[in-house]
Amino acid sequence: MASNFFGELFRFTTFGESHGPAIGAVIDGCPAGLALKVEEIQAELKQRQPGMSPYTSPRAEQDEVEILSGIFEGKTTGAPIALLIRNKDADSSKYEPIKDLLRPGHANFSYLKKYGVFDYRGGGRSSARETVARVAAGAVAKKLLAHFKIDLCAFVAAIGGIEIEQPDLSHLETLKKKTRENPLFCPDEKAAKKMMEAIEKVKLEGDSLGGVLQCVAHVPVGLGDPVYAKLEAELAFAMLSLPATKGFEIGSGFKAASMKGSEHNDAFDVDEKGNVTIATNFAGGTLGGISTGLPLTFRVAFKPPSSIKKPQQTVSIAGKKSEFKLPEGSRHDPCVAIRAVPIIEAMTALVLADAILMNRSAKL
Amino acid sequence: MASNFFGELFRFTTFGESHGPAIGAVIDGCPAGLALKVEEIQAELKQRQPGMSPYTSPRAEQDEVEILSGIFEGKTTGAPIALLIRNKDADSSKYEPIKDLLRPGHANFSYLKKYGVFDYRGGGRSSARETVARVAAGAVAKKLLAHFKIDLCAFVAAIGGIEIEQPDLSHLETLKKKTRENPLFCPDEKAAKKMMEAIEKVKLEGDSLGGVLQCVAHVPVGLGDPVYAKLEAELAFAMLSLPATKGFEIGSGFKAASMKGSEHNDAFDVDEKGNVTIATNFAGGTLGGISTGLPLTFRVAFKPPSSIKKPQQTVSIAGKKSEFKLPEGSRHDPCVAIRAVPIIEAMTALVLADAILMNRSAKL
Amino acid sequence: MASNFFGELFRFTTFGESHGPAIGAVIDGCPAGLALKVEEIQAELKQRQPGMSPYTSPRAEQDEVEILSGIFEGKTTGAPIALLIRNKDADSSKYEPIKDLLRPGHANFSYLKKYGVFDYRGGGRSSARETVARVAAGAVAKKLLAHFKIDLCAFVAAIGGIEIEQPDLSHLETLKKKTRENPLFCPDEKAAKKMMEAIEKVKLEGDSLGGVLQCVAHVPVGLGDPVYAKLEAELAFAMLSLPATKGFEIGSGFKAASMKGSEHNDAFDVDEKGNVTIATNFAGGTLGGISTGLPLTFRVAFKPPSSIKKPQQTVSIAGKKSEFKLPEGSRHDPCVAIRAVPIIEAMTALVLADAILMNRSAKL
Amino acid sequence: MASNFFGELFRFTTFGESHGPAIGAVIDGCPAGLALKVEEIQAELKQRQPGMSPYTSPRAEQDEVEILSGIFEGKTTGAPIALLIRNKDADSSKYEPIKDLLRPGHANFSYLKKYGVFDYRGGGRSSARETVARVAAGAVAKKLLAHFKIDLCAFVAAIGGIEIEQPDLSHLETLKKKTRENPLFCPDEKAAKKMMEAIEKVKLEGDSLGGVLQCVAHVPVGLGDPVYAKLEAELAFAMLSLPATKGFEIGSGFKAASMKGSEHNDAFDVDEKGNVTIATNFAGGTLGGISTGLPLTFRVAFKPPSSIKKPQQTVSIAGKKSEFKLPEGSRHDPCVAIRAVPIIEAMTALVLADAILMNRSAKL
Repeated sequence: MASNFFGELFRFTTFGESHGPAIGAVIDGCPAGLALKVEEIQAELKQRQPGMSPYTSPRAEQDEVEILSGIFEGKTTGAPIALLIRNKDADSSKYEPIKDLLRPGHANFSYLKKYGVFDYRGGGRSSARETVARVAAGAVAKKLLAHFKIDLCAFVAAIGGIEIEQPDLSHLETLKKKTRENPLFCPDEKAAKKMMEAIEKVKLEGDSLGGVLQCVAHVPVGLGDPVYAKLEAELAFAMLSLPATKGFEIGSGFKAASMKGSEHNDAFDVDEKGNVTIATNFAGGTLGGISTGLPLTFRVAFKPPSSIKKPQQTVSIAGKKSEFKLPEGSRHDPCVAIRAVPIIEAMTALVLADAILMNRSAKL
Repeated sequence: MASNFFGELFRFTTFGESHGPAIGAVIDGCPAGLALKVEEIQAELKQRQPGMSPYTSPRAEQDEVEILSGIFEGKTTGAPIALLIRNKDADSSKYEPIKDLLRPGHANFSYLKKYGVFDYRGGGRSSARETVARVAAGAVAKKLLAHFKIDLCAFVAAIGGIEIEQPDLSHLETLKKKTRENPLFCPDEKAAKKMMEAIEKVKLEGDSLGGVLQCVAHVPVGLGDPVYAKLEAELAFAMLSLPATKGFEIGSGFKAASMKGSEHNDAFDVDEKGNVTIATNFAGGTLGGISTGLPLTFRVAFKPPSSIKKPQQTVSIAGKKSEFKLPEGSRHDPCVAIRAVPIIEAMTALVLADAILMNRSAKL
Repeated sequence: MASNFFGELFRFTTFGESHGPAIGAVIDGCPAGLALKVEEIQAELKQRQPGMSPYTSPRAEQDEVEILSGIFEGKTTGAPIALLIRNKDADSSKYEPIKDLLRPGHANFSYLKKYGVFDYRGGGRSSARETVARVAAGAVAKKLLAHFKIDLCAFVAAIGGIEIEQPDLSHLETLKKKTRENPLFCPDEKAAKKMMEAIEKVKLEGDSLGGVLQCVAHVPVGLGDPVYAKLEAELAFAMLSLPATKGFEIGSGFKAASMKGSEHNDAFDVDEKGNVTIATNFAGGTLGGISTGLPLTFRVAFKPPSSIKKPQQTVSIAGKKSEFKLPEGSRHDPCVAIRAVPIIEAMTALVLADAILMNRSAKL
Repeated sequence: MASNFFGELFRFTTFGESHGPAIGAVIDGCPAGLALKVEEIQAELKQRQPGMSPYTSPRAEQDEVEILSGIFEGKTTGAPIALLIRNKDADSSKYEPIKDLLRPGHANFSYLKKYGVFDYRGGGRSSARETVARVAAGAVAKKLLAHFKIDLCAFVAAIGGIEIEQPDLSHLETLKKKTRENPLFCPDEKAAKKMMEAIEKVKLEGDSLGGVLQCVAHVPVGLGDPVYAKLEAELAFAMLSLPATKGFEIGSGFKAASMKGSEHNDAFDVDEKGNVTIATNFAGGTLGGISTGLPLTFRVAFKPPSSIKKPQQTVSIAGKKSEFKLPEGSRHDPCVAIRAVPIIEAMTALVLADAILMNRSAKL
C-alpha cells in the first residue's frame, strides 16, 4: 500500500482505519503564509458528517479535528500540516459475527488475497471512513484555492436513474446556495423530490441506490500538465480512487461517443473587448489536458452501496457457502452519492491545489 | 510539463513532437532477464500505424523502432530501455497557413496560454503521434505481462452511437481473433458493418465520429494499491491521459448509478473444487481497488476528432474572427477510436506491468 | 517543504515542530505480516532520549509513542503506520527574548528568507527534535530488517579530534555490546575516556564539540539501484538530511583521494568452499552502487552544536547589531554526535528497508 | 534499476551503455521560453571529452549531441528535451578475454549478483561513459541557472595527497579562468605542477591516483527544501551517485568534527547599508538545509581509478582464482578526478535547477 499519498507539490498522505484509534492526514507542500484556522477544517468535516439527514447513515461521529503541526500564529509556515481525527463512535463488536464471511461488493476478499490479513472491523482501511481525512486535507486545499480566487461546487446529478435538469454552471454562488439548501445536495428541487421517494422506497426494501455526482470549478487558464498529468487524467484518478465509484466523464463524456466533430468542437469567438470566448463547452473546460478558463465540469458514477439489509448469498473465508446478513443495528447509507458531495469537492480542490503549484514552473 | 512519465516501478518517459526529428520512450525499471526482440516492438507499432485501412488516416509513417539500450544478448539487463522512432513523413509546410489560428477542439489555445509558445507543426507535443511512444513502451510491458501469463484485448465497442453486443470476456483468444480480423477492430461483425456505413457517411460530409473502446484483461488476484493507487484509478488516469478521451468506466460504470445494491452486488459462490467463484461481474474485476481475478474490464469514451474538413468559425491568435479550414491534403482520421485500439492495449499493459512489480512488496 | 518524506517503497513522512503539540511519522509501504509491538518502538526512542547521560541535554521528554494505524492483531496489515509522540516538556517562553535575533549557526535566518515566517519556539521544524520521528519510523524499519537477517550498529568514532581505534566490523554483536555499555556510545574505552575529558572541558567553557559517527551494517549482496539511487548515494542523502551533519564518506572515504589504485582495489579471492571472498574492504561494502555482501560501513561528520553558552555577536531581524545569549536554563548538548547514534541507526535502517523492497523488482 | 532519473521538477532520465548504440538523456520539466542551442550543449561535452590532455584517457569519442525534441524556434517549449549521443569509438572485442573475470574495484560482481546478467562491454551501464548524458543534461541546467544569474565552478583541490591552497571563492570569474587555463583544471599552478609529476609517476608504474574536487556556486538565499531534501543532502546524493566517489563534505566538512562551536559558528554582522553579512563560511553556504546567499561550497573525494595496468589477483565468474590484466590497448585515466570537473559542475547545476523550481512553491 505504498500509495497512501496524493499529489506532487501539494501532497497529502492519509492514514487510519474505520475502527482504529484515529484517522488523519499530513499535508506536505502547502506554501507558507496562508491563513488557516481549525474551525475552517471543522466546518468542512461537518458537511461530510453522517447522521445529519434522514437520507444518510446515522453514525454520529463528532469528527473533531486537531491541527498537530505546520501552523504558527494563524498562518501556514511551509512545514507539514498534520490533521488528526480520533474515532469515537466505533463499535467493532458488531462485526464479530461476520468476520469470517466474504462480503459481496466489499474489499475483504481482495485484501485478504493481497495482504494475507484484513482488519475487518468496520471495513478497516477500505472503509469510506477514510474519506474523512480527504475532506480535512481538502479544507486546506480549498483555503489555498480561495487565495487564488478559484471556487467550486459539487452536487447530486442523478440518483437511481432520476436525472436533474442541467443547471447554469456560470454562476457558482447561486448553484452553491441551491445545492446546500437541499437535503440531497441536489440543485434541482423537482428532481430531488423524486429522488427522495426512490430512496425511501429502497430503504423499506432494505436495498440501496446508485447515483451520479457532478462538479464544476471556475479555474484560470493553464492548469494541467501534459502529456500524462492532464488535468482530466488527474481528476479521473482522484475520483476513481474514491470508494464505490465506477466511472468518470469530463464535459460531453460518454455522449461525445455518439456525436459528430462539427457538433462537438467548441467554436472560438471574440467578445466586444477583443477577448477570446468559447460559447459552448463540450470539452468540459480543458483542451489538450490544460484548463481553458471555461467552467471545468465532470461527472462521477457511484454504484449502489454494497451494504444492504437484504440477506445475500456468500461464502466463508474457509470456503463454505453461507448467507450474509448485516449485523442488527448496522449503520449504512441507502445512497452513498449524497454523502460524497463534500468528498468530491475535497478531491477536486486537492487536484487543483497541486495543479496551481505545478503551473508555477511552466514558464521562465 | 514535468510529467512526461508514467508508472512507479515500471516507469516510462516519452518525448518528441509530431513534426520534430523523433519520438521516443525510455523505460526505467523493467526487470532483468526478460527476452526481448526489436521485432516484437515493431509488430505492435504496425498495429497502430495509420494508412493500414480505409478507415484511418493515410499518413504513411514507417515507424521503425531502434532499441538504444537496456538489452544484452537478447535479454533485458535491468538498465533503462530506450526506444527511438524517427519521424520521416512529417510535412510541416502545410501548417504554415493556419499557424496563427486557434484550432477548435485543439490544444494550441491552452498551450499558448500556459507556455507562451506552441510548436504548431502537426500539433507538436499535443499530437496523437505521441502515442507511438506509448505503443512502443507498451510492447515491452506486454512482453513482461506474457511472462506472468497476463493477457488482454481491446476492441471497438461503439461508434457514432452504434453499440456492439457484449462479447464473451472469458475467452480472450476468440475475442482477439474476432477483433483482429475486423477492419474496425470490432468483434461484432454486424455492428461493425453499420459502423462502416456511418463512417463512410461522415467522411463524405467532411465530418468525424466519436466512439467507445472496451478493454478486457485476464489478471491474477491482488493487483492494485489502495488507497489512492487503486487499479481502476490508475487505469482511469492512463486512459484520460490519451488525446480525445472524455470518459472512463469500469464494470457496470455509469449504469451502476441506476441500479440497486441487490442487483449490483456480485455474489460469492464456491465451485465443486472449493474455489471461491463470482458469477456476475458488475464490479469489472476489482474490489476495493484490488483485482479479484475476474476479467478486468473497462470502457473509454472518445470524442469525434476535432480535425474535420468542414470549415469552422474561429479566432486568430491576434484576436480576429476568422474561418478555420484544414489545409488541402491534410491527413486525419474520421474516427480516432479505431486507431486507439493498440494504444489502449499499450496503456493497459503499462499500468498492469507497474501493478505487478508494486505487488511484490505487498507482503513479507 | 514538499519534501518531508523519505524512501520510495518503504516511505515515511514526518511532521511536527519542537514546541508544537506533537511530532509524528507515517510509514507507507511496510509489507503486511510483520509482527510489531509499540514497546519495540518505545525502546528505540529511549535510546535517543535526552537526559539519560551527563553528556547529553537534560530535556526530559518522555517521548511516549502511540500507534494510530496499520497494525491489526499484532501484525502490520499493509496499511500506513502512523506514529504519534506528544510534546510534553516544551517550554516556549524562554525563547521570547531571543525571537528577534538571528542565531549563529541556526536555521532561522534562512527559513525567514525562504518562507517569510519562522516558528522560533525551540527551533520549530528545524529543531533536532524532529529526529524523534525518524527514530520511531526507524524502529519499524529495523523490525523489517531483522526479518531479513540484516543487522547494524552505529557508534562514536571521534569527538573533538580524538579518534577511536578501528574496531572489528565483522562481529556485530560484540561491537553493539561495547557500544551500548559506553556512556558515549563509543566502543573504544580508552579513546572514550579522553573524549569525556574533552567534553567536560568545553562544558565548563560554555562551548561545544564536533564529532564523527561511524555505522556498519551486515547486508546481503544486491542492494542499491544504479545509476542514481546507488546505495551510498541514498545513505549520503539520508545522513546529510540530519541536522548538524557536514560530511559523509563510505569505506576509505577521503583517504581514498591519497591512495593508489593498486592499494585501493579490493582483490577478489575464493575460499575453500569455492565462495568468492574479498579480504580488504576499502570500498566500504558496495561496488557500482550495489552492496557486495561485505560490511557496509560509512562515517558522518557532525559540527559542534551551534547552541553554546558563550555570548556571540549577531544581528537582529530588524538589522541591528546585537549580542546573542542563550536564555538562562536552556538545555543543549555539548556534543550532538553522541545523541545521534540511534538516529544514524534509524536512518540507515530506513534506507536499507527501502532498498530491500526495491530489490524485489530487479529480476524476473 | 528504476532509478535512472534525478530531480523532481527539473527531472532528467538517462539511458545507454558504454558500448551500446547510444547514450542519452531526457529532461522533463525545463520551463518554456529558455533560449537553447545545440552548440551550447556541445561545448559542455567538449569539456568532458577524453583525449584532450596527456592526463586523461585517449578514447577519442566525438560525442556529437543531437536534440530530438523540446526546442522550437530556438527556445524551449516546456516539452521534454531529449538529447542523443551516438557511441562511435566503442571497441568491444577487447573485452572478450576478460568477460569471465571479476574486475577488482568494478561493478561486474555486484551487477551479476543483482541482475543475473552483466553487459561487460566497456562496463556497460556502470561505465563512467554514462556521465556524458549527465553533462549534456547539465548544459541545459546551466543555461537555466544563467537566466537566474547563478554561476558555479568546479576545480581540482587535491590529487594523490597534494592539496591546493584554498582560492578566493568570492570571485568566480577569476577562479574559472585560472581553472580552465590549467591542464588539470586546478586553479593553484604550483600545486598543479606537483600533481602532474605524481600522475606521470603512477602512469609509469601502471597505477592510478585518487583526488578531491571542490565546487563553488553563487546562489541566492532560500534554495533547498527541509527536512529531507536539504540542499546539502541533494548535493551529497548527486555526488555519491557518480562513479568512483567515496565522500562528500560541505563547508568545514570533516574538519568540523574537531572544532568548537565558538570557532565554527559563522557570526552575523551588518554592513553600512544595513544588509546582513556573514564574514566566515564554515557552514559552506547553507543553514538548516537552505542556502544563505554565501558561496555554496563542497568537496568530493574520488578513489584512484580501478582500471590499472598492473596485473591483479582475482577470481573468475566460475570461481577460479585468476590473474586480471587489462587488455592491451585499453584506454583509461590515471586520475579520474580531472575529467570529473565538468561532471561535478553538471550535477551541481542539475541540483540547483531543480531547487530553483521547487522554491517557487515555498510561499504564497
